[in-house]
Amino acid sequence: MQILDGKKISAEMKAEIAAEVNSIKSSGGKIPHLAAILVGNDPPSETYVAGKIKSCAEVGIRSTLVRHDTSVREEVLLKTIKDMNDDDDIDGFIVQLPLPAHISEEKIIEAVDPGKDVDGFHPVNIGRMVLGMPSFVSATPAGIMELIKRYDIPTSGKSCVVVGRSNIVGRPVSNLMSLKAYPGNATVTLAHSQTKNLPELIRNSDIIIAALGKPEFITADMVKDGAVVIDVGITRVKSEVTKSGWKLTGDVKFDEVAPKCSFITPVPGGVGLMTVVSLLKNTLIAAKRKQAH
Amino acid sequence: MQILDGKKISAEMKAEIAAEVNSIKSSGGKIPHLAAILVGNDPPSETYVAGKIKSCAEVGIRSTLVRHDTSVREEVLLKTIKDMNDDDDIDGFIVQLPLPAHISEEKIIEAVDPGKDVDGFHPVNIGRMVLGMPSFVSATPAGIMELIKRYDIPTSGKSCVVVGRSNIVGRPVSNLMSLKAYPGNATVTLAHSQTKNLPELIRNSDIIIAALGKPEFITADMVKDGAVVIDVGITRVKSEVTKSGWKLTGDVKFDEVAPKCSFITPVPGGVGLMTVVSLLKNTLIAAKRKQAH
Repeated sequence: MQILDGKKISAEMKAEIAAEVNSIKSSGGKIPHLAAILVGNDPPSETYVAGKIKSCAEVGIRSTLVRHDTSVREEVLLKTIKDMNDDDDIDGFIVQLPLPAHISEEKIIEAVDPGKDVDGFHPVNIGRMVLGMPSFVSATPAGIMELIKRYDIPTSGKSCVVVGRSNIVGRPVSNLMSLKAYPGNATVTLAHSQTKNLPELIRNSDIIIAALGKPEFITADMVKDGAVVIDVGITRVKSEVTKSGWKLTGDVKFDEVAPKCSFITPVPGGVGLMTVVSLLKNTLIAAKRKQAH
Repeated sequence: MQILDGKKISAEMKAEIAAEVNSIKSSGGKIPHLAAILVGNDPPSETYVAGKIKSCAEVGIRSTLVRHDTSVREEVLLKTIKDMNDDDDIDGFIVQLPLPAHISEEKIIEAVDPGKDVDGFHPVNIGRMVLGMPSFVSATPAGIMELIKRYDIPTSGKSCVVVGRSNIVGRPVSNLMSLKAYPGNATVTLAHSQTKNLPELIRNSDIIIAALGKPEFITADMVKDGAVVIDVGITRVKSEVTKSGWKLTGDVKFDEVAPKCSFITPVPGGVGLMTVVSLLKNTLIAAKRKQAH
């Protein structure tokens, strides 16, 4: 059994990105620049955005944060997006979700220039990804694919179950894993709340990608020997062991499942750590594409 | 066993579309208008385009055909597309594929205004479809969904295998069938050339959508009792029975599979007939959307 070490791989990737940014700088190129728009003061959103900005600094990517009040009108937010679309110095930008209820997330996402949509949320990027064309892939699916690739895990012809059909994880990763590419070429089943015989379906799969958000849902009896298990779930549950009284728990009952696996991601320390670095990588790609034009 | 009668359903849909077009006309509205661009004289393409134009006439939709020589330069074709994007009278248009090798199909498809892309090939329409947003769904997947809907076939929680992962049939229909919607909510497995144990996978499925293009590949031993079988394959094979010496054959060995099914599409007379009418429906939707703006 091998642990898919998100900490190690994300550190490796950060070092690679930092080296590339450095070489751009030393050859006199423009420093890659990520901007973020944050509406309101939702504590988790504050934490996520702060993490992204800190990670930019670590690899030498310039970052800008633009804040709007929770009461911001949609037109004002759209104007900020338009300004970022038009700003030649900004290579990519994100609008931190969720947004207040009076603003249409769909409208906001579709207003972002697809070439600067480093979150990969714009339908044109989703469509290009599904068609196997170059695109920005959103952070979690991109992080999963990168982990599989860096550990050289065979995927072609393997049966793969993706549990959970969210637009930002389950659905994109199910499409990616079935593309004619590596990682990919797997026979993918997308399972969800309406799926019958889920334990049996999981038990018959070579690769299990769990993104349903139910702590420790997947138990040892549902996993076949030698399976690859990617755990995307991160739920905060009460704990009597930790000082804070809380711990982060995945969708997989790690202690009993891990011994059966060929590869497994821990939670925390697995997929979660891959997401921010995937955003940094998309920003670097966006910057390099713009230079090439 | 019930036959999913593409002839009957497509005739019903044509009558409905004709009635809507008529009511637009009689209330003094603009007549819906579909344009087609045909490059060269590829005989199947000529046949398809002629069929589309004839069908437009049958339902009262105006049509325009613009032809280009096989040697047309990409810029010239792009200019034609731009003119159609800008032409307020044209509600939707299609570029008949395939295109000559010197022209990038991707570039051409991405040049079409997504709001007029009634073929549903533009990545933004694919992306919107995958995300469950309003979009133009391409003719074959749309036709399949319509057949399922008009025969009120239960899909929620059913296991569904889609055999073949093409960008215009297998992949979109696999996404549609797993959306939280009706038809949909099925547990979908997308099978392809790398899939192992395909007969077993098919045998375990409640709904089988065959789009691999191998005549009579699916035999009775691969189909469970009561299955729903949608046959998208249309291959011309030699025949000693027909006058022409040829017959159209599906991916399913109809005679032996049909008795086991709850529902099955014949070939010809099934999915094939649903495609043109799906294009007409998209054109009507495009026209109505434009009027609403």
